[in-house]
Amino acid sequence: MSQTIEAIAKALSAEAEGDLGIKVTSASEPPSARADQLALAMDAKYLDGIAKGAARAAIVPAGTDWRALGLEAAIFVTRPRLAMAGLSRAFDPGPEIAPGFHPTAVIDPSATIGIDAAIGPFVVIGRGVVIGAGARIASHVSIAEGTHIGADAMILQGARIGARVRIGDRFICQPGAVIGADGFSFVTPEKSGVEEIRATLGVRGEIHEQNWTRIHSLGTVEIGDDVEIGANSTIDRGTVRATSIGSGTKLDNLVHIGHNVQVGRDCLLCGQVGIAGSSKIGDRVVLAGQCGVSDNIFVGDDVIAGGSTKIFSNAPNGRVLLGSPATKMETQVEIQKNLRRLGRLFTQVAELRETVTRLTQKGDV
Amino acid sequence: MSQTIEAIAKALSAEAEGDLGIKVTSASEPPSARADQLALAMDAKYLDGIAKGAARAAIVPAGTDWRALGLEAAIFVTRPRLAMAGLSRAFDPGPEIAPGFHPTAVIDPSATIGIDAAIGPFVVIGRGVVIGAGARIASHVSIAEGTHIGADAMILQGARIGARVRIGDRFICQPGAVIGADGFSFVTPEKSGVEEIRATLGVRGEIHEQNWTRIHSLGTVEIGDDVEIGANSTIDRGTVRATSIGSGTKLDNLVHIGHNVQVGRDCLLCGQVGIAGSSKIGDRVVLAGQCGVSDNIFVGDDVIAGGSTKIFSNAPNGRVLLGSPATKMETQVEIQKNLRRLGRLFTQVAELRETVTRLTQKGDV
Amino acid sequence: MSQTIEAIAKALSAEAEGDLGIKVTSASEPPSARADQLALAMDAKYLDGIAKGAARAAIVPAGTDWRALGLEAAIFVTRPRLAMAGLSRAFDPGPEIAPGFHPTAVIDPSATIGIDAAIGPFVVIGRGVVIGAGARIASHVSIAEGTHIGADAMILQGARIGARVRIGDRFICQPGAVIGADGFSFVTPEKSGVEEIRATLGVRGEIHEQNWTRIHSLGTVEIGDDVEIGANSTIDRGTVRATSIGSGTKLDNLVHIGHNVQVGRDCLLCGQVGIAGSSKIGDRVVLAGQCGVSDNIFVGDDVIAGGSTKIFSNAPNGRVLLGSPATKMETQVEIQKNLRRLGRLFTQVAELRETVTRLTQKGDV
Repeated sequence: MSQTIEAIAKALSAEAEGDLGIKVTSASEPPSARADQLALAMDAKYLDGIAKGAARAAIVPAGTDWRALGLEAAIFVTRPRLAMAGLSRAFDPGPEIAPGFHPTAVIDPSATIGIDAAIGPFVVIGRGVVIGAGARIASHVSIAEGTHIGADAMILQGARIGARVRIGDRFICQPGAVIGADGFSFVTPEKSGVEEIRATLGVRGEIHEQNWTRIHSLGTVEIGDDVEIGANSTIDRGTVRATSIGSGTKLDNLVHIGHNVQVGRDCLLCGQVGIAGSSKIGDRVVLAGQCGVSDNIFVGDDVIAGGSTKIFSNAPNGRVLLGSPATKMETQVEIQKNLRRLGRLFTQVAELRETVTRLTQKGDV
Repeated sequence: MSQTIEAIAKALSAEAEGDLGIKVTSASEPPSARADQLALAMDAKYLDGIAKGAARAAIVPAGTDWRALGLEAAIFVTRPRLAMAGLSRAFDPGPEIAPGFHPTAVIDPSATIGIDAAIGPFVVIGRGVVIGAGARIASHVSIAEGTHIGADAMILQGARIGARVRIGDRFICQPGAVIGADGFSFVTPEKSGVEEIRATLGVRGEIHEQNWTRIHSLGTVEIGDDVEIGANSTIDRGTVRATSIGSGTKLDNLVHIGHNVQVGRDCLLCGQVGIAGSSKIGDRVVLAGQCGVSDNIFVGDDVIAGGSTKIFSNAPNGRVLLGSPATKMETQVEIQKNLRRLGRLFTQVAELRETVTRLTQKGDV
Repeated sequence: MSQTIEAIAKALSAEAEGDLGIKVTSASEPPSARADQLALAMDAKYLDGIAKGAARAAIVPAGTDWRALGLEAAIFVTRPRLAMAGLSRAFDPGPEIAPGFHPTAVIDPSATIGIDAAIGPFVVIGRGVVIGAGARIASHVSIAEGTHIGADAMILQGARIGARVRIGDRFICQPGAVIGADGFSFVTPEKSGVEEIRATLGVRGEIHEQNWTRIHSLGTVEIGDDVEIGANSTIDRGTVRATSIGSGTKLDNLVHIGHNVQVGRDCLLCGQVGIAGSSKIGDRVVLAGQCGVSDNIFVGDDVIAGGSTKIFSNAPNGRVLLGSPATKMETQVEIQKNLRRLGRLFTQVAELRETVTRLTQKGDV
């Protein structure tokens, strides 16, 4: 994967100076860079490290005096993380899956798989599955009957895609993700304790024995284009309609999406986020790690929630949330500040009570 | 899977009127229903949608004037979610697993598998495993040595069942669940920092280097009848005795059950719930999503805990819990209300202090 | 696996008395022990149970009058959990994986596997993989190209180890764990809402449409010696440098380790803990179940955090943490105490206001 500085700069749509014919094979942090590596010093604070390594070329902030750093070539960037995206794409070798179908794969004869597919060992593809061109499917993946997946999918080791799921183009599925398991939906013959306390806000009448009858999931899962699902995440199928994930949305690892949930476009759901059944998440929503969303509520477009925020009620568009239960971020910051000052408040009130008691006694006398 | 309205009504033990010979192939939300689908309008608020779709028959609340809605037949229900349970069971096609043993399955000759089994590709079944009649085991499942599973099990793709586990009848296991991994149990040669702060409630003496020796799990996992385990959930084996899950209990996705935990009958543990080692959960307990239970405590029968409730101490029977740390729901509602009013309290106390200072000075003069 | 009392005592470096030739096949809690089992009564409170079972030999606290309990032999221990570690190791039969390579395993010819390996059905091992001696690799495991694993590894069913990962000796990997999935790292062409609120602490300007460009993970994962990874846990690869886990560290089930994270030596990360990208965890850190650590912070050596603690900012060495947001444990205990007394404080302040108003009016008159 040796590439010239010129080719890399072109891939990044970036300016470059110096010996553009220098070839590099990979990228590195500056201090540990070898002579055949490109040093990543996209932020000025990393420039000092260049001298400690052996790189001949580096990516540096626009305007950097690269010659003074001992470099022979430099690529200039203005938005470092965006440059990193292009650069990492250029250097990513991707998973090694041999072209064609591995002889151990069990592919139903009724399945339709587009050209240029690479399907690894022990993959199972069910009846009537349709997969677009350019699919890379790693070992041990299962794709159940009737599922359609668009072009250029990359589905990694042991991912489980259930029956009748619909997925768009350029789908990325990390190892162990489960898409289309049954929803968690049960009902008791009589009204359950959960239904009771939802109505009474916590007050319970006589408690009865009860057991749970399963509501099967007849719905499916619909996923747009350019979606990525993290390792060991789970997306349940809907009860009647489909659980849906909009185009451009990315899920991190160990995320749980309940049945009937609708997630909009271009969202980021970070590690261990959980969305309970039938809730609706807008477009461009960002939920940081370990956030939770209750069932049957909506979270508006452009909402951002900080780590471990637990959203129990509807959130309007554009709201920035924090805390458990979630409040506006500024309210939560105020609450936390108040909590830390609370000990002092108790002391002040105790003192006030003493003083006022004295004043009252004096006044009464 | 075409069924008459008459047959469906009978399966639901429900009344029906109109042309009971109409056949439907599946169910749909009313506005998108085709002529060969049964419209689901079990709640009155969905009745308006019937005119927008093409359904000839619908499930409606008892007493609905179905003819006025343009329907040719109707099934009447009183408890909608319970009807949905029966209906969804009737229409669920279930996973497609060909009858018999797939030729790629690796089944130890000493295993005993009941009649009418369907075992998919790349399944591995170990020495001495016993599985009851009617098992449906999807691709990539592994069941380790000495495990016994009752009748009518449905074990989905890539589920991992460890050695010497005991499971009752009608077991449902969603994809990727891991039952019977080793417990997380380690010990240091000297008393560890964790043991120290448990004794001192946070105060630490001199800190020593320490490393961890593994306590292997010699126990197993015992699961009753009618239990369902969600996708990618994990249940660890016990240290000496078994970790146990009572009959009728349902676990959602990404739930973690630690070693030695005992969960009672007919519980619902929702997505991402975690129960730490050696705790005991009573019967009919409902823990909403992301709840946590500390180790070595008990949660009484019929306890219900709201989303993200973190239970650090024993909870008596019937308690409704909320918050982190968990309190009675009504206490938590009060705490949250107080927190939001706290800013005002600080202002009031500041004003009081000023006033009282003035009063004191006046009084002193 | 029949063993004499003498052999077991020797394995535990413990004293024993009585008929040391008695053979036992496994261990049991005292009341349910059979005659061929060793009763575990390492704590005095379990001694009463011995009479209810049929054990001929038991492990008891040093100084116990074992003959009075009807035993024929006894092993004496001083630190019970440490004894349990040795004992459980002695009795653990381990997973049954036949020696050699199962004929269905797909092992790249360029892979190097040490002597005494046991590799199960449907295992996939990629190009250039190097695995040390004594490896036990259970069914359905995949190990991708270029990964190196040390001696005496035990890798259980369906674990996924990605490309170019480096792992030390005596590695234990529970079923379904995913090591080396891509990091969750995305960037928008323009500054994103997340970047904005980090700078403004929650205040947002005009909201723009934005979508996410992927930053590929060029780095890898480096894991030391004596590390254990729990079932269905996930460790993402680094962006440029490696995500790293120090020697002696143990991860429980469903733990998430983000890209670039560095975890030190001899840590315990309990069930469902999540560490966001680029954070640094010191040595001997213990995070109880469901703890969370924000991205780009550090948690010092010897930090201990209680269940569900959410760490949003740097934590110094030796700190004991609790709560969300995390505070020192003693501060959190104080905060919780204050919260429960808050209702009374509101009442007191309301009373004070009335009294002071009366005093003021009196004073004014």
